[in-house]
Amino acid sequence: MVTIGIVGAGLRGRLFAEALRGQPEVTVVGLAEPSAKVAEEARAATGLPVTASHPELLEAFDPDAVIVATPDFAHRRIAVDVAEAGKHLLIEKPVATTLDDALAIAAAVHRSGVRCLVGFENRWNPHVVQAKAAMASVGEPITASATLSNSFFVPTTMLSWAAQSSPAWFLMPHTVDLVLWLTGRRPVSVSAVGSRGVLAKRGVDTWDVVHALVAFDDGSTATLSSAWTLPDAGDGIVDFRFQVIGTEGSVTADLSHQGLTVVSDKYRSAWPVSGRIGRSQVGPAVWMVQDFAAGLVDGGDLGPDIDHGVLVTQIICAIEDSITTGQTVQLTAPTI
Amino acid sequence: MVTIGIVGAGLRGRLFAEALRGQPEVTVVGLAEPSAKVAEEARAATGLPVTASHPELLEAFDPDAVIVATPDFAHRRIAVDVAEAGKHLLIEKPVATTLDDALAIAAAVHRSGVRCLVGFENRWNPHVVQAKAAMASVGEPITASATLSNSFFVPTTMLSWAAQSSPAWFLMPHTVDLVLWLTGRRPVSVSAVGSRGVLAKRGVDTWDVVHALVAFDDGSTATLSSAWTLPDAGDGIVDFRFQVIGTEGSVTADLSHQGLTVVSDKYRSAWPVSGRIGRSQVGPAVWMVQDFAAGLVDGGDLGPDIDHGVLVTQIICAIEDSITTGQTVQLTAPTI
Amino acid sequence: MVTIGIVGAGLRGRLFAEALRGQPEVTVVGLAEPSAKVAEEARAATGLPVTASHPELLEAFDPDAVIVATPDFAHRRIAVDVAEAGKHLLIEKPVATTLDDALAIAAAVHRSGVRCLVGFENRWNPHVVQAKAAMASVGEPITASATLSNSFFVPTTMLSWAAQSSPAWFLMPHTVDLVLWLTGRRPVSVSAVGSRGVLAKRGVDTWDVVHALVAFDDGSTATLSSAWTLPDAGDGIVDFRFQVIGTEGSVTADLSHQGLTVVSDKYRSAWPVSGRIGRSQVGPAVWMVQDFAAGLVDGGDLGPDIDHGVLVTQIICAIEDSITTGQTVQLTAPTI
Amino acid sequence: MVTIGIVGAGLRGRLFAEALRGQPEVTVVGLAEPSAKVAEEARAATGLPVTASHPELLEAFDPDAVIVATPDFAHRRIAVDVAEAGKHLLIEKPVATTLDDALAIAAAVHRSGVRCLVGFENRWNPHVVQAKAAMASVGEPITASATLSNSFFVPTTMLSWAAQSSPAWFLMPHTVDLVLWLTGRRPVSVSAVGSRGVLAKRGVDTWDVVHALVAFDDGSTATLSSAWTLPDAGDGIVDFRFQVIGTEGSVTADLSHQGLTVVSDKYRSAWPVSGRIGRSQVGPAVWMVQDFAAGLVDGGDLGPDIDHGVLVTQIICAIEDSITTGQTVQLTAPTI
Repeated sequence: MVTIGIVGAGLRGRLFAEALRGQPEVTVVGLAEPSAKVAEEARAATGLPVTASHPELLEAFDPDAVIVATPDFAHRRIAVDVAEAGKHLLIEKPVATTLDDALAIAAAVHRSGVRCLVGFENRWNPHVVQAKAAMASVGEPITASATLSNSFFVPTTMLSWAAQSSPAWFLMPHTVDLVLWLTGRRPVSVSAVGSRGVLAKRGVDTWDVVHALVAFDDGSTATLSSAWTLPDAGDGIVDFRFQVIGTEGSVTADLSHQGLTVVSDKYRSAWPVSGRIGRSQVGPAVWMVQDFAAGLVDGGDLGPDIDHGVLVTQIICAIEDSITTGQTVQLTAPTI
Repeated sequence: MVTIGIVGAGLRGRLFAEALRGQPEVTVVGLAEPSAKVAEEARAATGLPVTASHPELLEAFDPDAVIVATPDFAHRRIAVDVAEAGKHLLIEKPVATTLDDALAIAAAVHRSGVRCLVGFENRWNPHVVQAKAAMASVGEPITASATLSNSFFVPTTMLSWAAQSSPAWFLMPHTVDLVLWLTGRRPVSVSAVGSRGVLAKRGVDTWDVVHALVAFDDGSTATLSSAWTLPDAGDGIVDFRFQVIGTEGSVTADLSHQGLTVVSDKYRSAWPVSGRIGRSQVGPAVWMVQDFAAGLVDGGDLGPDIDHGVLVTQIICAIEDSITTGQTVQLTAPTI
Repeated sequence: MVTIGIVGAGLRGRLFAEALRGQPEVTVVGLAEPSAKVAEEARAATGLPVTASHPELLEAFDPDAVIVATPDFAHRRIAVDVAEAGKHLLIEKPVATTLDDALAIAAAVHRSGVRCLVGFENRWNPHVVQAKAAMASVGEPITASATLSNSFFVPTTMLSWAAQSSPAWFLMPHTVDLVLWLTGRRPVSVSAVGSRGVLAKRGVDTWDVVHALVAFDDGSTATLSSAWTLPDAGDGIVDFRFQVIGTEGSVTADLSHQGLTVVSDKYRSAWPVSGRIGRSQVGPAVWMVQDFAAGLVDGGDLGPDIDHGVLVTQIICAIEDSITTGQTVQLTAPTI
Repeated sequence: MVTIGIVGAGLRGRLFAEALRGQPEVTVVGLAEPSAKVAEEARAATGLPVTASHPELLEAFDPDAVIVATPDFAHRRIAVDVAEAGKHLLIEKPVATTLDDALAIAAAVHRSGVRCLVGFENRWNPHVVQAKAAMASVGEPITASATLSNSFFVPTTMLSWAAQSSPAWFLMPHTVDLVLWLTGRRPVSVSAVGSRGVLAKRGVDTWDVVHALVAFDDGSTATLSSAWTLPDAGDGIVDFRFQVIGTEGSVTADLSHQGLTVVSDKYRSAWPVSGRIGRSQVGPAVWMVQDFAAGLVDGGDLGPDIDHGVLVTQIICAIEDSITTGQTVQLTAPTI
């Protein structure tokens, strides 16, 4: 039996707790949450004990593994403490929002020898899984492009901490990971442009939009775009499209339109189907956390590791650098 | 612990066996299959015992429940025997291809008091589940339409028994059930047209295409279309689209294009994503059979019952009648 | 030089006048319009004289040809008078809304020997033209289906005379003509269902939705659907889709989504591009009326003739009959 | 009466000749074509005289205006000679493939005071015209992105001179112009990446794919992508998509899928509808050249001028520079 604690008892933390309920040989022992209000809600929703901090969680339940489901910028101390306590880790993406933080977490993980999954949940997204499978049929990758954007709703209403994040930090970890996974290439340099001002006028002082070019070590390329300024009158809050062109074929995805359109006086939706199918809870985050638990039980592969997480953080730091300096930024292997 | 046997060890039977592996408190005890060759393959693929007939399966393992996964026209004797032996049933759709057969199965089920799920697996199809949920937002249903068609591949290559079936029997059980479920209306009459000749020239003597109109007891209507003659050069083997228009909104689905297009020299695909996501086996048939087993364990609702299955068979019989006679066919409640 | 008068000075009449301006060897001599207010607007918009009635138009200008651009139900007297005066005709579709009216117009046209185009403008719709051209590549038609629907806006706001029309009369002339043109088949019987009540509650007492099945003389079939109850929150006011399946291929059209989506706080649009391109006025109605005029000048083919117009009216009358009687209606050649 | 000569008698030259036939107050006097074989075909196709060179065309017919419809790299001498002869010009895009050539043409045009249209024909593309109109509804542009790619067919089969061109020169003039026109912004710097090798292996030694970032003087941005390596098994030879996000809305276009899909054993098409509608020849190039002629007749605005053409060439030169140097390239106003 593997025991798991969850740090962060917001929507994601509760989703993970729910997804692990009834999984064989796994027990969620409790959550940690600094906000008394959120903690109380989580207690009511999950029926699980909720401590006020991650040290108390470790102290009280001594779990085998910990899931870090807090905002990005708060990962470092928790992840380092958990790793140093010898607990396995699932850390939400991005692993951190500075390279220094990411390297500190990686160092702790490597030192203690714990296992660590960074939660790039698109690895469990059915479309992305199928796209990865299709790569075998399209020859050598020539180039890739990916757009992942949100409507204003996300930075201005959904996220309380949007000003501490950006389209680059909130959205591009997904597309950077996507492009690296699908192409299997190693990035060597990054150029990027971006603009700000529109969200700032709405009270969220961060980038409105970021575009980046990536060059890989075999000379191939990719382009990434993320905006946080799509109109709220559109089809849902997410625009997610990507394309990989290979020497013998292509994979093209528009995950914003998955075949179902609901139009009513009350709402409009063209966004993917998810949620509950009969008794089954479905969706990438559910399958990811269940596989994490199963991998802890049987020792099987967990998925993207901490070094990959560091690389993604490094690339997004380079994107930010390039926007600021107007120059192409070379990526050198960090000393982990 | 619930024990389950499976009659029919083809692809569907093996899929059900695989989907039930590792489900809590459920054991698949064996399969039955008349073809020695298929039986041998199933033994190798599943590691389970395979008997030559359903009586031997019942005799050898005395399971609590049986899944009937044979071709449609072969359901009657198996289902009646299983019901009379007091075993619960999952019968693949359509429950039978004559009203007489369907009523015989229903009578056996009711007489013996066993539980019975008819496998309208779209009830576990994520898009259909979401469409059903959306019905709450679109007001009263005014009308529905559904198209479910296949390319030539299905009747000429995939199905060995296509000449004993038709677009009406192979495809319309899905769309009849879909329209009944989404609208919640009771059908009162059916008109239909169809044509044959193209498949006959290719050696499969059945209908090429069937179109039907359905009138409901509240005056509302639906239209259904199924063809078996789409070009094989198209996007996959299935064209599945539907629309429900309500007084306050609409639901429109094109399940043939779910957002991912793969084009290569080897194949082309725009058809839904399915299969395996990490360690999870996903898809409507998987979730359906897992819920069937779970419902047997805890007594919860199983889904569409035998009387609904009879109604769907009755409607398709009426569609065939209408094509033949050129007249509108009234539906009267059968004496079950 | 060919001279043309236009009866009906609403939006369509003015569009025709505008489209003919500057065409070689053609002069629009004037319009006729009973409403003093509309007549005044048309005078200002076109700079052309506007008489109060069609006899006055004929009297004052003695044109070579007349375009009948009034509501459907008002065609008969005008078209008969114009034909009997020996003037060529462009009559908007449907030629009439009763078979009696249609036959009276046809008789007058045949008696006087004038030329007559019935304005099935989809013959000049780029998508439909391309679909027709593609028919050469898809083998023999097996079946066709067509949906043409409007949102509530059309019957409740756009058309003042919606209660005197219906989805069948306003929309199905397009799809009946489309299916006849694309397949080249002769219809022999019609079955239809429909419902009413939702528009009636909104003050427009007509059918909400109509579905029809058509059988052709070679045994092939078609299905047609038209609703006037789509949600106004959708993508524009028109949903227009069709498919023809042939023995060697298929043509599939969704003219509601032609590749451009505009989303703003002010409006939303996915409907076809049209209007003015530089100095060119473009669109089916423009090209149709210009070809009508050019055909009068050089004697070339005009397009769908009065007998085709009668057939389309006959089919829609049969659809209405079938809805009312619940029976399949046989089509016999009318004595024209 | 305006007289026009056409240099280059290939497909484009003949299309222009055909499009100008019957236009009021315009006469095409002849074409010029160095290839005897192409000249002979053009004579047969158009019935017009074809000289062997542009000086002979000028000498023989002394036209008021000349259309330059040769490959890109051959524009300079022709355009300069024509301008210096005092003839108005329509030059196909890009005006030239070096900044030096473009500036030489611009200098000649300005010196002689002739009128000059650079043929950015998307200004007459119905979707782009509608997108431009929609810009009034989406607020201030925040960012734009545009993808315009071809399948292998274009560089390896369609164009004999592909190795002298590239995705940047053949495709990006369209998207650079598109983004400049829709946003109305002035570009200040460019970063780009690209790769080569796949086309080289197929015997066409040029770039496979090019991606570029553009920064504008108000801080806003755009991203452009063009590949020449899409699979030939896809939907036609062109993939053309763009999006502009504004402060109050967005415009999203996928011109590769305009609502019509033809699938047959012989071909497959989802590409735009064009060609002939009844007696009307339609399409961007037709409307552009007709408006050019009409503007010469009445003195009205012609469209994108030579200075805009120089700017587009300058930007594409900067894209090539950036790919080669790996650095961001600043754009300074050239001295024209």
